[in-house]
Amino acid sequence: MCMTKIYHNALNIKCLDLSAANQVHYLSGPIRILDKDGVPAKPGDLLTVEICNLGPLPRDEWGFTAMFDHENGEGFLTDHFPYATKAIWHFEGIYTHSPHILGVRFPCLTHPGIIQEGTPEWEKIAREATRTIPGKENGGNCDIKNLNRGSKVYLPVFVEGANLSTGDMHFSQSDGEVAFCGAIEMSGFLELKCEIIRGEMKEYLTPMGPTLLHVNPIFEIGPVEPRFSEWLVFEGINIDESGRQHYLYVSIAYKCVVLNAIDYLSKFGYSKEQVYLLLSCCPCEGRISGIVDSPNAVATLAIPTAIFYQVPVGPYLLRKPDILKCTDDGNLPTTKNPSSTV
Amino acid sequence: MCMTKIYHNALNIKCLDLSAANQVHYLSGPIRILDKDGVPAKPGDLLTVEICNLGPLPRDEWGFTAMFDHENGEGFLTDHFPYATKAIWHFEGIYTHSPHILGVRFPCLTHPGIIQEGTPEWEKIAREATRTIPGKENGGNCDIKNLNRGSKVYLPVFVEGANLSTGDMHFSQSDGEVAFCGAIEMSGFLELKCEIIRGEMKEYLTPMGPTLLHVNPIFEIGPVEPRFSEWLVFEGINIDESGRQHYLYVSIAYKCVVLNAIDYLSKFGYSKEQVYLLLSCCPCEGRISGIVDSPNAVATLAIPTAIFYQVPVGPYLLRKPDILKCTDDGNLPTTKNPSSTV
Amino acid sequence: MCMTKIYHNALNIKCLDLSAANQVHYLSGPIRILDKDGVPAKPGDLLTVEICNLGPLPRDEWGFTAMFDHENGEGFLTDHFPYATKAIWHFEGIYTHSPHILGVRFPCLTHPGIIQEGTPEWEKIAREATRTIPGKENGGNCDIKNLNRGSKVYLPVFVEGANLSTGDMHFSQSDGEVAFCGAIEMSGFLELKCEIIRGEMKEYLTPMGPTLLHVNPIFEIGPVEPRFSEWLVFEGINIDESGRQHYLYVSIAYKCVVLNAIDYLSKFGYSKEQVYLLLSCCPCEGRISGIVDSPNAVATLAIPTAIFYQVPVGPYLLRKPDILKCTDDGNLPTTKNPSSTV
Amino acid sequence: MCMTKIYHNALNIKCLDLSAANQVHYLSGPIRILDKDGVPAKPGDLLTVEICNLGPLPRDEWGFTAMFDHENGEGFLTDHFPYATKAIWHFEGIYTHSPHILGVRFPCLTHPGIIQEGTPEWEKIAREATRTIPGKENGGNCDIKNLNRGSKVYLPVFVEGANLSTGDMHFSQSDGEVAFCGAIEMSGFLELKCEIIRGEMKEYLTPMGPTLLHVNPIFEIGPVEPRFSEWLVFEGINIDESGRQHYLYVSIAYKCVVLNAIDYLSKFGYSKEQVYLLLSCCPCEGRISGIVDSPNAVATLAIPTAIFYQVPVGPYLLRKPDILKCTDDGNLPTTKNPSSTV
Repeated sequence: MCMTKIYHNALNIKCLDLSAANQVHYLSGPIRILDKDGVPAKPGDLLTVEICNLGPLPRDEWGFTAMFDHENGEGFLTDHFPYATKAIWHFEGIYTHSPHILGVRFPCLTHPGIIQEGTPEWEKIAREATRTIPGKENGGNCDIKNLNRGSKVYLPVFVEGANLSTGDMHFSQSDGEVAFCGAIEMSGFLELKCEIIRGEMKEYLTPMGPTLLHVNPIFEIGPVEPRFSEWLVFEGINIDESGRQHYLYVSIAYKCVVLNAIDYLSKFGYSKEQVYLLLSCCPCEGRISGIVDSPNAVATLAIPTAIFYQVPVGPYLLRKPDILKCTDDGNLPTTKNPSSTV
Repeated sequence: MCMTKIYHNALNIKCLDLSAANQVHYLSGPIRILDKDGVPAKPGDLLTVEICNLGPLPRDEWGFTAMFDHENGEGFLTDHFPYATKAIWHFEGIYTHSPHILGVRFPCLTHPGIIQEGTPEWEKIAREATRTIPGKENGGNCDIKNLNRGSKVYLPVFVEGANLSTGDMHFSQSDGEVAFCGAIEMSGFLELKCEIIRGEMKEYLTPMGPTLLHVNPIFEIGPVEPRFSEWLVFEGINIDESGRQHYLYVSIAYKCVVLNAIDYLSKFGYSKEQVYLLLSCCPCEGRISGIVDSPNAVATLAIPTAIFYQVPVGPYLLRKPDILKCTDDGNLPTTKNPSSTV
Repeated sequence: MCMTKIYHNALNIKCLDLSAANQVHYLSGPIRILDKDGVPAKPGDLLTVEICNLGPLPRDEWGFTAMFDHENGEGFLTDHFPYATKAIWHFEGIYTHSPHILGVRFPCLTHPGIIQEGTPEWEKIAREATRTIPGKENGGNCDIKNLNRGSKVYLPVFVEGANLSTGDMHFSQSDGEVAFCGAIEMSGFLELKCEIIRGEMKEYLTPMGPTLLHVNPIFEIGPVEPRFSEWLVFEGINIDESGRQHYLYVSIAYKCVVLNAIDYLSKFGYSKEQVYLLLSCCPCEGRISGIVDSPNAVATLAIPTAIFYQVPVGPYLLRKPDILKCTDDGNLPTTKNPSSTV
Repeated sequence: MCMTKIYHNALNIKCLDLSAANQVHYLSGPIRILDKDGVPAKPGDLLTVEICNLGPLPRDEWGFTAMFDHENGEGFLTDHFPYATKAIWHFEGIYTHSPHILGVRFPCLTHPGIIQEGTPEWEKIAREATRTIPGKENGGNCDIKNLNRGSKVYLPVFVEGANLSTGDMHFSQSDGEVAFCGAIEMSGFLELKCEIIRGEMKEYLTPMGPTLLHVNPIFEIGPVEPRFSEWLVFEGINIDESGRQHYLYVSIAYKCVVLNAIDYLSKFGYSKEQVYLLLSCCPCEGRISGIVDSPNAVATLAIPTAIFYQVPVGPYLLRKPDILKCTDDGNLPTTKNPSSTV
């Protein structure tokens, strides 16, 4: 068991030239994991990594969400939004708000986008250009938005010492992180607790492909998550914009649902670029609702309406008492007891 | 094990003359509980009652909340609100709204206010006038607002057959039901599943007083409860309105917090009577926050702000698009990649 | 506005021969929707349908989940599970349990799998064989598992009277309904409240394809959902079992994650068929976690651990007191105040 | 508006001699609050204090819960538990566990027990001995267990500069903090954001007693709270242990319910002192369920069963695979399609 505090500085990412540079993730690590007797993790072990604490670096409480230029970084809807842009987000405790997307403020689930271990095939993997960008067998860029305080990751150990690395910290992200650099990217710190479970990689994780490397980590997500009362849910199916029918193709259904939501929300005074960025970083949920009713896969996107706060409502703490007046006459009829002496 | 469906008609309560009549609860029962071999529950057994389903009677989907005249039924704040009044509530699925308290609509936790068993000392208890009004050792008027679908009650069996009775159905209630007839009273049905655990009353329930009767039931509340994002919390301490300091007296602290909340919410266009009724029946939580820091007990009342819906907010489904316009200029700067050919 | 109660009898589906029959959905409807002045809904209107109440038919409180034979109904993992099978589920209030998959019991989000309106192109659509099977522009088989009490659907009106139809009732379903007939199929009733918003179809819904028909409904899901403390999360990426790398292909990533979860859970004494059925009907969440980090899409499947209840834990209501004993010696040291006279 | 980070060191409290010393709270402050133009808060203003971040001091991640000797600090159940004792708790991220109360581990809602402002009557108040111990009009020891990250307090300003002070940090506390020093006391830091709302004290807060000082602060609690699936609920009524009937006396009903819960939980291998401490510091909820059905007030105590983790259950990540085996035979019958060639 070990306890480590990582100060991960991703400020370089913050300065990124979104229109031209190649995107790279600067990770913290590799960290060599030893047990309390000093014996390193070994191939075939299972490594548990608990996220005890994490947050932005002190005096650096801000981040950004961005989409790349069409030729430079793709993004999910790059054909619709080919130009690079970004929005800055300010952090206030667990909340964030942006001068570039007014009228929204939301509580955040901060998490590392990347948590991974070393692999013996690093050279080969690097040649194939997947590098740190995608989610991979050894963890990688899994982008699980709920990997907040109290979460635990069960990782396979492929090399001696495990060579744990982590980073790509997100103050908040939606399922899918659709604008590519769509989470709220920030510099930050992490406190991790590691435990080695000797020789149990095989017992927990089964290869889903031809080699022993083709395993996927397992996660336990933490017990705290912002409560949201109301969700607005959009739907998409795998018919593309030309009207072409695809077959159980979730990626196209998800494209359809995100476009649907962008179109709808842009009716409230936002530009489509603003909504696209917002749907990349606010705590909305992207679900695979239907995957069996051929030919149509159904994807849904659920947006918590509480993130929009422009018009204060109800007996919130009063600031503009005239707006909030109830339209009732304010009187209930009361009936005095005829025998009462009060 | 047995399964029973109770159609409980409380319409008589609905016609109650609030200014003069004595309040009585019309219960359904007593129900004699047998096991599958036909052997009745016996003293010393423990009876579990699971609330499988419940709701308003078909074609009778309405209820009321009321406060009594000072001389007739007390109520928690009867000195401040001495006259009788009531509000009618209409049910729409799990939601309710009232023509007498405009601007609120909320999802409800429907439950029986009373669930109890027979006791051998019924005659004595009746003479002492507690009858069905209060919560008692055998269950009684416990008014636990979360006793919704999926909840389970563990009751002591004092007499052969258990003589289970239930009723006083509430479409919704706040903790405390402060206006006396303050829950949304309705007629309704209940589906219960009973199980006899032979001879285990003593193992589960310990008398808290001088006789074997002084036990209290245990409850498991169900797993569904409306999610609320935001709560407005008021505080009260045990200093009464004359400024007199009491000693760890929660009842006075709770009076203080309810008065506080009534005063605040009445600034939004409601009469104080309306707020008093609302705080009796909406899903708000009354907590004992501090009971050890002498001389002051601290009570809190938490109100979910989502029950107030007068002014639609955020990208809710649009009805009045002009109200909802974001004040932003609606444009994010975008940067075209100089080398791009798109 | 109108209020209607639909008794939808799907018993025929329950008798389905899974090994050979063609699957069809028997829907209730079409229902012609009029406003209070008797004027029917018209093309271009928006129809809101609120799900006020729903549930299994009285005395028919059971359902089933099934997978089809490979040649007969596909299913998401039909290559891995080519033979037909099914499990029966018994309902107890909001809970369900099965004699065929022991050790699980869970609270359910009951919903209609299909809610849809008539279209002018019905003949053409029928010829193209989509019929009622998939989710479609007019609603269709959307299979949104959270479409429970208090939910609201905003549907486009294409034909006079709207011709609303609904059915395919599910006592519970997971995101994706992976085994095809994977939800807990049941007969049931629905109480709906409809409202016509005149001429606003275009204002709410924007076509995502070449015709006006290419719109998707919007949903507001209800505020009650079972609370779950702990979720076990599996991950899958778009590398298939042969090791072939696909490109941002969520459907393959989802296949990977479901296989991962099946493999893991089958280590606890279940057959893989049992787990496959369970993951089709229990309230687990299928998410699109990463869709931008090419080449790998990342899908996750989150399973609430509370659905497994074999071994009672903690101070739950005691049945087997010896199992639950805490290993502590049961004594805290106490220190008497030397000056005390107690 | 101002932003401040308070490092509050309560280590002295940690060394407290529980059997003899007088309890005092060492607070951080007073902090003079100015607006951005340097103008101090003034009497009649309203001060909002948002809790942006808080936690234990680095390298001091532990705390304790304690009960005092009968003659020294009272406590809610001091007559039943007259001797001083304590339990140490270790922190792991948002979780805590104790070597003195084995078998429990729970996620925590960290909060300041005290947040208050200066008053002009300080001398008088001090003479009357309430000092920092109880909750008071200017805030004081409110012990609201949900005052976690993202919460906001609206305080009256009585003196120039407000003289804000805070401290008594709790890693976790139950409603009521019943054992007196019953929360998990710790040293810690706080990041606060203050805002002055000029002259609006009267508009927000109404005196509930004879002087202007008799106001109570209002709170908005934060949106993150651990999710718990299952709650075990105990009930108490205002009949004391001698069998004496009291009248709508919540404090006695709460005593009854806490004793009930202690008795029940002690059947699982804990000493009663351990349970008493546990019910003071774990996230359980104390509610005023009934306050109108005279003569009996009903109080309830709801305990999330997930805090007990001794016996791992269900398909949690497997450690002891033999314990977790499902008792099913593990085979569903499958039916091959007679016409199939697979």
